Amino acid sequence: MGDTKLRIKKEYKMKKIIYAIMLVVTAASFNQTKAQDSTLFPKGEIGKNTDDYTGTIWLSELNQPDSNFNFSIAQATYAPGSKLNWHIHPAGQYLLVTEGTGYYQEKGKPAQIVHKGDVIKCLPCIAHWHGAAPRSSFAYVAVTPTTKGKTIWLQRVTDAEYNSVR
Amino acid sequence: MGDTKLRIKKEYKMKKIIYAIMLVVTAASFNQTKAQDSTLFPKGEIGKNTDDYTGTIWLSELNQPDSNFNFSIAQATYAPGSKLNWHIHPAGQYLLVTEGTGYYQEKGKPAQIVHKGDVIKCLPCIAHWHGAAPRSSFAYVAVTPTTKGKTIWLQRVTDAEYNSVR
Repeated sequence: MGDTKLRIKKEYKMKKIIYAIMLVVTAASFNQTKAQDSTLFPKGEIGKNTDDYTGTIWLSELNQPDSNFNFSIAQATYAPGSKLNWHIHPAGQYLLVTEGTGYYQEKGKPAQIVHKGDVIKCLPCIAHWHGAAPRSSFAYVAVTPTTKGKTIWLQRVTDAEYNSVR
Repeated sequence: MGDTKLRIKKEYKMKKIIYAIMLVVTAASFNQTKAQDSTLFPKGEIGKNTDDYTGTIWLSELNQPDSNFNFSIAQATYAPGSKLNWHIHPAGQYLLVTEGTGYYQEKGKPAQIVHKGDVIKCLPCIAHWHGAAPRSSFAYVAVTPTTKGKTIWLQRVTDAEYNSVR
């Protein structure tokens, strides 16, 4: 019976080790998920002009244009499937994709898939839209010259346009 | 003896489970380390003007300024302890810190510690330097107006200046 007791004790100890390791793994994976969810810069507020987009988009202004710097720098973060309406930047815009996968389309061209690490150059006065892929978050830093006035908002992106991305 | 065999088999099985879990944990942590090492945009080439910095700094130009966009966008990635010389931007510069921990100092002010997610506004003609902390990689995206000419390079950062950071 002493042998049985020893065995039970040994099995109990091993089970404890397994549970401890599993706890660490769970905690580590939770931590990693959390890290992946966080944006590069603070997420900011949900955009107020809901007429200009569908879904949920957070905007964080990273500078204030002034007499020295005639461009705005802002981070936009999209929940999966969210998208801006078609729009025009009178002085163009650069998009630096910092997270996830999204769609980008210029008028008259096929929509394309863009990823973290891509740089998109939108020329002045070219109508275009961008948004998150259906099952991916999406974020970028936009650098937009402020020399020729504000963004001109156009029509909503149709389902057919959004779903045309392959 | 049948009982002993069963026990040995059970212990062997449990040990196998422990080793399998430990393998997964090791692989996961290796993977995470690898992910942390990668930069947001391609790392680019090591900077050629070694007279202007000490250590190892990679530069990746993300745009080409032109008649529409009168600013450059570039990612700089620093090996731990690397730093630029003191310098001046005739039209100023924004630094968007995308990775790690670094130091930033303007002439006549104490050096400060900066982190991923910080935005630094360097005004025109203010002498300053920036670099990686001694044991951290460091990267940023710099947005620099190109309207008033090139960066003016000054003296090297002394050890006393670099080590003044608390």
